Amino acid sequence: MSRQSPGFVLVFALVCCSGLESVLADGPYRNRDNRSVYDLSEGTYPIPYQMPRREEIVEVLQRIRGYLETAAPTRIINDRTGDQITDWTTPIEDAYTDRGEARAFYNLDYTMGVTHSGMLLCAEVTGDKAFTDFTARHLQFIADALPYFRAQGEKFNKGRRGAFRAILHTESLDDSGSMCAALIKARQAGVGPDLEPVIRHWMDYISTKQFRLPDGTLARQRPQPVSLWADDAYMSIPALAHMGAMTKNRALLDDAARQVVQFSKYLFDPKTCLYAHGWHANQPLNPQFYWARANGWVMMATVELLGVLPEDHPQRDEILNYLREHIRAVARLQSGEGLWHQMLDKNDTYLETSASAMFVFSIARAINRGWISPVSYGSVAQAGWIGVAQKVNRRGQVEGTCVGTTLAGDNVYYYHRPTSPYATHGYGPVLLAGAEMIRLLENPKIDIRHSVRTYHYIPKEP
Amino acid sequence: MSRQSPGFVLVFALVCCSGLESVLADGPYRNRDNRSVYDLSEGTYPIPYQMPRREEIVEVLQRIRGYLETAAPTRIINDRTGDQITDWTTPIEDAYTDRGEARAFYNLDYTMGVTHSGMLLCAEVTGDKAFTDFTARHLQFIADALPYFRAQGEKFNKGRRGAFRAILHTESLDDSGSMCAALIKARQAGVGPDLEPVIRHWMDYISTKQFRLPDGTLARQRPQPVSLWADDAYMSIPALAHMGAMTKNRALLDDAARQVVQFSKYLFDPKTCLYAHGWHANQPLNPQFYWARANGWVMMATVELLGVLPEDHPQRDEILNYLREHIRAVARLQSGEGLWHQMLDKNDTYLETSASAMFVFSIARAINRGWISPVSYGSVAQAGWIGVAQKVNRRGQVEGTCVGTTLAGDNVYYYHRPTSPYATHGYGPVLLAGAEMIRLLENPKIDIRHSVRTYHYIPKEP
Amino acid sequence: MSRQSPGFVLVFALVCCSGLESVLADGPYRNRDNRSVYDLSEGTYPIPYQMPRREEIVEVLQRIRGYLETAAPTRIINDRTGDQITDWTTPIEDAYTDRGEARAFYNLDYTMGVTHSGMLLCAEVTGDKAFTDFTARHLQFIADALPYFRAQGEKFNKGRRGAFRAILHTESLDDSGSMCAALIKARQAGVGPDLEPVIRHWMDYISTKQFRLPDGTLARQRPQPVSLWADDAYMSIPALAHMGAMTKNRALLDDAARQVVQFSKYLFDPKTCLYAHGWHANQPLNPQFYWARANGWVMMATVELLGVLPEDHPQRDEILNYLREHIRAVARLQSGEGLWHQMLDKNDTYLETSASAMFVFSIARAINRGWISPVSYGSVAQAGWIGVAQKVNRRGQVEGTCVGTTLAGDNVYYYHRPTSPYATHGYGPVLLAGAEMIRLLENPKIDIRHSVRTYHYIPKEP
Repeated sequence: MSRQSPGFVLVFALVCCSGLESVLADGPYRNRDNRSVYDLSEGTYPIPYQMPRREEIVEVLQRIRGYLETAAPTRIINDRTGDQITDWTTPIEDAYTDRGEARAFYNLDYTMGVTHSGMLLCAEVTGDKAFTDFTARHLQFIADALPYFRAQGEKFNKGRRGAFRAILHTESLDDSGSMCAALIKARQAGVGPDLEPVIRHWMDYISTKQFRLPDGTLARQRPQPVSLWADDAYMSIPALAHMGAMTKNRALLDDAARQVVQFSKYLFDPKTCLYAHGWHANQPLNPQFYWARANGWVMMATVELLGVLPEDHPQRDEILNYLREHIRAVARLQSGEGLWHQMLDKNDTYLETSASAMFVFSIARAINRGWISPVSYGSVAQAGWIGVAQKVNRRGQVEGTCVGTTLAGDNVYYYHRPTSPYATHGYGPVLLAGAEMIRLLENPKIDIRHSVRTYHYIPKEP
Repeated sequence: MSRQSPGFVLVFALVCCSGLESVLADGPYRNRDNRSVYDLSEGTYPIPYQMPRREEIVEVLQRIRGYLETAAPTRIINDRTGDQITDWTTPIEDAYTDRGEARAFYNLDYTMGVTHSGMLLCAEVTGDKAFTDFTARHLQFIADALPYFRAQGEKFNKGRRGAFRAILHTESLDDSGSMCAALIKARQAGVGPDLEPVIRHWMDYISTKQFRLPDGTLARQRPQPVSLWADDAYMSIPALAHMGAMTKNRALLDDAARQVVQFSKYLFDPKTCLYAHGWHANQPLNPQFYWARANGWVMMATVELLGVLPEDHPQRDEILNYLREHIRAVARLQSGEGLWHQMLDKNDTYLETSASAMFVFSIARAINRGWISPVSYGSVAQAGWIGVAQKVNRRGQVEGTCVGTTLAGDNVYYYHRPTSPYATHGYGPVLLAGAEMIRLLENPKIDIRHSVRTYHYIPKEP
Repeated sequence: MSRQSPGFVLVFALVCCSGLESVLADGPYRNRDNRSVYDLSEGTYPIPYQMPRREEIVEVLQRIRGYLETAAPTRIINDRTGDQITDWTTPIEDAYTDRGEARAFYNLDYTMGVTHSGMLLCAEVTGDKAFTDFTARHLQFIADALPYFRAQGEKFNKGRRGAFRAILHTESLDDSGSMCAALIKARQAGVGPDLEPVIRHWMDYISTKQFRLPDGTLARQRPQPVSLWADDAYMSIPALAHMGAMTKNRALLDDAARQVVQFSKYLFDPKTCLYAHGWHANQPLNPQFYWARANGWVMMATVELLGVLPEDHPQRDEILNYLREHIRAVARLQSGEGLWHQMLDKNDTYLETSASAMFVFSIARAINRGWISPVSYGSVAQAGWIGVAQKVNRRGQVEGTCVGTTLAGDNVYYYHRPTSPYATHGYGPVLLAGAEMIRLLENPKIDIRHSVRTYHYIPKEP
């Protein structure tokens, strides 16, 4: 026994606990921060309501990373036989990227873009290069395989999704914005090969090729002839913002700022202070579906923009106001389990993980950057993280995430979207949320007190 | 066994049937329109969320009609013995209309008026005369039995409900408005005998006898000394509107339009955009009970009026605006099962069939007439119909309808109103909803697409 | 059998039922006021929805009183041994008040202040001196034991809570306001010894020692450096109001009125018309936690003030308006079980007894005093009382009361506060509610009718 290092014991304990504390966790839980075991005024909770510790958060993040290392491969395979293709000299017709476990992990998926953003932030906050190794491996694969698929496309004219179609035949913001933002961040962090040509290609698509409303708002031509999707906020604004900052191109920043303002004009409902999932030009009165992840995309995009928008930008205050009202409304709708509901304003819809993680990340970052007060939102973020962390199972899978969801027109559809650990939208947001939570817990400007069985985030005197 | 009274058998039958014959369909359902059986992004639903087919809707409507043919008789019986009275030469004291199954189906009930309106629309849409045969049979019975009960009343001075009191001693809008509207529609459709004298009698009651507020709003003297009931919108406006249109009597149309505007002034809540169940002159601040069926009555009445109100009527725009805001609010509150809740704004109340059917009919008609956009409301109506259709059991009974409900003052009452297939308020609305849904599905101006697992109602280019 | 009087049978039935109908009650219940047992339109209820009878309410109040007689002692004990101390000549270090059953009943607790207010009102309404005997016993104990604990404090410098710290070292509104109001009421009713020195001490604390905002609003220095708690409305306003009325000190009444107006300015949300639990000077945008008991405290305090505020007080109308809007919003949120939810606007939180009783008391009194209309609120109070009465168990304990709860920052905390019969916040409000309900049922200006299966409160013609 004495030969086991303390580290091993810690890891062993964590692994065991993480299993017990996984999604199948059998609460109720008692708050460990209350030392008085006979305190009858201490309730029990369906989640372990308590102060999370840095090492616990890191363990969750590592567990996810570990899972993704195995689940999200960087290989070319023969789509017919499943065999790996190692000879890249001559492209074959059936070559395809290996989508990994349950065929869920596309190398160029917009959800993978968020995952890379999460890995980069995890490395930044924890100092552990293992996180960026994941991203470096993936980016290297993109650099290496791109000529292969380009040659394949020229030879067989396939244009299939798994054959790098998102680069070779970019046709949507889903194809470009999220991954592009991740490539820019990686480049700035010195992670992976320089993919500047891909970045420039995608930025050109976003800036000049994507369908827009006459007022410049980025939009789509489905499901109605002219439709605006809240999701597209994240599929464009972070790329525009970070590219604008990296290249000191004010026009890109202006476009990013304009998108936040215009999306809000169309989608923000002043009664509920939530964003509708979409808007149609042929029916200007919004359908009132406040889908959680749509709100998560907008909130994350706004937070990403504010991180690089100059303090004196003329639209900064307006954007800040939207963010503050949005966060206030979302905070009020947090469930008793820390998570948020699939339809934010409907407490008989299920609790959804990806949106919850997006809110936790955004709220924690907004506090850390001084955009909102820790007084009202610190314990919201903390309770949200506790809820989110419960959704990471023993294998490191993120459970409870709503699968890809279109802009629809009735509650029956939205209520019953299935959830799956293979809905990859949850991974990046949980990585981002955990990393930013560590920063919040260690924020030197905040005094976090456990008092009278709950938590108070008290700004320190200047 | 033969010694058991009919009463026992009836009770026994009621208890047994309610379980076995209910709709208790055994979901979850997978959308049959998705041909890809391995699509993990296709959820399952508690109702068969899919495109309903014309023949399926017709089958539901026929099933209801078939049930009503047997359940709603047109006979005079001896109320003491239960025997049919076939000799109508001399009235006897105990003569009474046969109320049919579970004594639920009064020939002159306001719910029967809606049922006739439904039968007339079903015949119009399906071309099947079997629907109007039901109405013709009932109207012929009214024409034939009226002299009998009039003579009975003169001889015995009974004035009982089952002895045509609603005609012979009309004393409320419940007695007159809904059946009167049905008689007018039948007359215009050439269905059944001409009951013009009854129509004129009831119109005179509505126009000149019914209690009104000083501003002309139709009202009641219960439960408070002066009370306005949302239900009365349907018990008056359709009759006024259709009579006005049939006789080209502008004053009747003006009165109908005035009622919509005035009812809205008293009952429409601008915060929720719903109608309160009622208003009392001695307490002008509305109690905030947004009972679903009350909202259904108002919405149906408004839709009926708009169908005949001249395009240039000075109040048409105001009425259209109320309808649009009302439908928008109601659409948002649709449950994940397609139906609406007994209290519209309370998702812990049960799902109620009659109001849901009223909404489906009204929304589908408002789309078909071009008053609201198919973009936002097409799939709401479709999902609503799917939910409603599940409530029609094998026998053709409409289940889940709230029984008759008074204008009350507390949630405990409203939450716990029982439901019954013998609450006849559901039958007419389901017939109307199904017929209008067929028109919506076949609306030549709308392209209905199944795409990405849901439905989009796209207006065709002109 | 025939020798048993009907009275005995009634009492026997009540006693039995009250047991069965206690918290463990196994409904559903049918309304006994509906004599027609075959009425299929009569629903069943989870609580006995019916007209409560005076003797039934009195029985509930007596049951509670009986429990409190045994559970809430007036003794000094040796805290170490538990033995009673009968020799009061020389104070010993370990002397302590006996907190009674489950150590829950502090003689000077703010919840005990409400209990005394309830006992005084019960005696006033029922004429039964047994209620005031409880208060007289407790007040005599305070008068007798105060010199003992003062001497103990001087000798041992303990300042412990159970050693009359609330008087000897007053340091909060919780220590003073509620008990002080009870002492003033007892003095005015001639109950118990004259505790004027204690009253004057506490009034001085409230008026001159308690922390206030610059604008005079009573506040605290926790959990944030400057925080306003809705709870403090009751911990100050009734004392200020009744002292002002008793001593004809207009300045105290003005301060009480100002507190209602200022608390409302900070905490009343015009969208929901509810009071937020608190406000922090360092984050002026309120966290939106509409905790039920916080709203109960404010409503009760407002009602207490209005009972003594001169008709011509310049702020009377403003205060009345706040009360009316508050009651209207609360009435709408009543659950289908008659009680209100722990978080008023969240129907997935549990039903909480103490706040529900506060609302029933406040609404019934507001009707009885003519501040709000019986039309809209009579049956709300009645249904509320039925729900509350179900929470009194066979022993006379009030169940389902949320334990002491701090001003917190997340829903996870609020949702999961435990309930306990030893959360003494429920006792006083239930006594107040029952007593005021008797007055409402016997209010000579209201005609209460059971009609069409519900209840109508109809103002009598003058």
